[in-house]
Amino acid sequence: MNPETTELLARRERVLSPSYRLFYEQPIHAVRAQGCWIEDADGQRYLDAYNNVPVAGHCHPRILAAMAQQGGVLNTHTRYLTELPVLLAERLLATLPEPLGKVVLTNSGSEANDLAIRISRLMTGQRGVIVTDCAYHGTSDLLQGMSPVTGLPLGPDVYAIQMPLVPVGPEQFAALVSGAIERMEADGVMPAALIVDTIFGSDGVIADPAGFLAGGVQAIRKAGGLFIADEVQPGFGRTGAGMWGFTRHGVVPDMVTTGKPMGNGQPVAALIMRDTLATEFSKIQRYFNTFGGSSVSCAAALATLDVIDDEGLIDNAARMGKRLMAGLSPLIAASPLLTDLRGAGLFIGVQTVSGEIAAAIVNALRRGGVLIGAAGRGNAALKIRPPLAISESETGQLLEAFARAVNEVQRSNK
Amino acid sequence: MNPETTELLARRERVLSPSYRLFYEQPIHAVRAQGCWIEDADGQRYLDAYNNVPVAGHCHPRILAAMAQQGGVLNTHTRYLTELPVLLAERLLATLPEPLGKVVLTNSGSEANDLAIRISRLMTGQRGVIVTDCAYHGTSDLLQGMSPVTGLPLGPDVYAIQMPLVPVGPEQFAALVSGAIERMEADGVMPAALIVDTIFGSDGVIADPAGFLAGGVQAIRKAGGLFIADEVQPGFGRTGAGMWGFTRHGVVPDMVTTGKPMGNGQPVAALIMRDTLATEFSKIQRYFNTFGGSSVSCAAALATLDVIDDEGLIDNAARMGKRLMAGLSPLIAASPLLTDLRGAGLFIGVQTVSGEIAAAIVNALRRGGVLIGAAGRGNAALKIRPPLAISESETGQLLEAFARAVNEVQRSNK
Repeated sequence: MNPETTELLARRERVLSPSYRLFYEQPIHAVRAQGCWIEDADGQRYLDAYNNVPVAGHCHPRILAAMAQQGGVLNTHTRYLTELPVLLAERLLATLPEPLGKVVLTNSGSEANDLAIRISRLMTGQRGVIVTDCAYHGTSDLLQGMSPVTGLPLGPDVYAIQMPLVPVGPEQFAALVSGAIERMEADGVMPAALIVDTIFGSDGVIADPAGFLAGGVQAIRKAGGLFIADEVQPGFGRTGAGMWGFTRHGVVPDMVTTGKPMGNGQPVAALIMRDTLATEFSKIQRYFNTFGGSSVSCAAALATLDVIDDEGLIDNAARMGKRLMAGLSPLIAASPLLTDLRGAGLFIGVQTVSGEIAAAIVNALRRGGVLIGAAGRGNAALKIRPPLAISESETGQLLEAFARAVNEVQRSNK
Repeated sequence: MNPETTELLARRERVLSPSYRLFYEQPIHAVRAQGCWIEDADGQRYLDAYNNVPVAGHCHPRILAAMAQQGGVLNTHTRYLTELPVLLAERLLATLPEPLGKVVLTNSGSEANDLAIRISRLMTGQRGVIVTDCAYHGTSDLLQGMSPVTGLPLGPDVYAIQMPLVPVGPEQFAALVSGAIERMEADGVMPAALIVDTIFGSDGVIADPAGFLAGGVQAIRKAGGLFIADEVQPGFGRTGAGMWGFTRHGVVPDMVTTGKPMGNGQPVAALIMRDTLATEFSKIQRYFNTFGGSSVSCAAALATLDVIDDEGLIDNAARMGKRLMAGLSPLIAASPLLTDLRGAGLFIGVQTVSGEIAAAIVNALRRGGVLIGAAGRGNAALKIRPPLAISESETGQLLEAFARAVNEVQRSNK
């Protein structure tokens, strides 16, 4: 290891909480990034096929210029009347179906999900929340109990459904949700909400069949609960099929949350909800978030929306996603270590036979200059999730490196 | 009202959740800001004596330059090894006494406080939390139950002490904390933590006598609980007596949280804790925060620390605070509407006879071109809290406007 890297690792261990973990057997000592590429302290470049925050590519000049311009003029909060949070809310709502009509701006998807759960409980007068068994919804005390993928126990009144990795239709998904409702009702708990990441990223990426979510949404509503679409991962064009993951399923959520990609790296997030929910909630509680909706964060989010439109990133996600799927498909058919290919747009899951194999492929790819991750039960699914701006030649490089890494792991596994 | 302002208000009502509220009878339509001044859409300039986020002044060029520079190079998270979060943690720890030794970076004071409470409960194995009766600690579901100033009920296992507005010594403060411990123990709840804003901002600004906190800290520790210093408001030099509010009280907290001023407007916050707490916590839980510790946010925080040092802002807070106190003192002695003057550095509270009078003075000052706020029981205390960069001539303008506003309210109140 580079001596600078060794020294920085030691400094990090001294001052940062050990609750933080670094990726990879050999951590990446990142010193710069541009587009879909991250460069380390040794000058080695990595194709970033993992990070879903820099949706328009790392260090996008237009988004940076918008932030710098706004930073020099005004950066303040929502207790003064300013145009940018209003403009941002208008732009977000223009991408969303009625009756989704009111916006709250926060700093993180965690803050947005935390508030969504609170509102669902206040508005239904019920407590029960349904999540999937590998769900991740955020870092707050409330949400850690709704994020079983962390290994922590479910929170009070939280019930998990076992998400199958084989495709389920709307009826089967409805039956899963109804089963959770029955279990909670047997405990005397009534349902407040079903919250799911609409591409089930931490469950191992479960996109198909499009439409299966609808059954669960019907089931939760029939039982008096709300449907919260956690769009922190699939939102902002990731699936290549419009701005939001839920549209592939033909449903309209009661609340939508977004975060990670929203400011291409700037901390900005949002909760968008039905008008009536916002109105009723505001009768019993105020909500203010110091940095939520601050001018520079809004400028970053508006510029990100502009870049997604002007650079055709949703179309690109659809086209590059198809290329990747087409290129991965024969590799999966040919390898005994890989069992399934799932996903939509540029959110792709490759099922492997075990968490050990997935980790070996992730680390082999890292040595081969491509960054991906693992997710799902036992971390056995590979998670491929590049910036939406990835090019044809970069997808080609990714596929070549992937084939080499799988071969390498197959050979060493014999 | 300016027709543009009327139109923007209507647009805002259409798209932002009504749970947001605007300041003042006539909201400020802010279009730009610089130093201690905010300008509205009519070109009217306001001396900002309220905002504790732009601690170095609005739109500080050096902090903006640091953000823009870093934004063009790298903006990524703590799962890669990067220098900036390490450097920021080192810089923060250099301002803090041992055994405070480990840092977690978040986006907001809310996220930092939420995690601090979680850790205090996990590490003590107890649930009871003590807050003051007008406390505000954040927006998350957990923290709203620890923020009685919002008017919401206390959360489960949360106990409030009635904070007197007359000065209390360490023994009296110890008795208040012990009383809360007795009440919780009578309910079968054992204490996990005492959390206070060390300048008691939302309680109406209670700074003196310096040292009174020590009694309560002893009491909570004797009962097996931890002391969390919420430095979101007093931290980063606000009190003019070093970086942190707790130092005036001669105590060393088990955990310290900071947020608002940390990035001069950029969403960045931190939890700093004893080494052993971080080590033990990390054995049972991981913690990752997507934007927490991201490169641009760290660059903003590092530049803010540089500016505080290089521009001597802590000294300035001490000197300008003294000038304001000296100027306010005769006004309070002369007015039947004003009953007390409290504070430290540039965090000043002026007690008025009622919330109506406080609101009338706040609105008269707004018409007179100066922005302040109200806080405390019944919102009867005026809260004066300018950027730490306020100049001598600006404090003079503030005092003149204050005297005029009080006279105006006195006349109309006869």
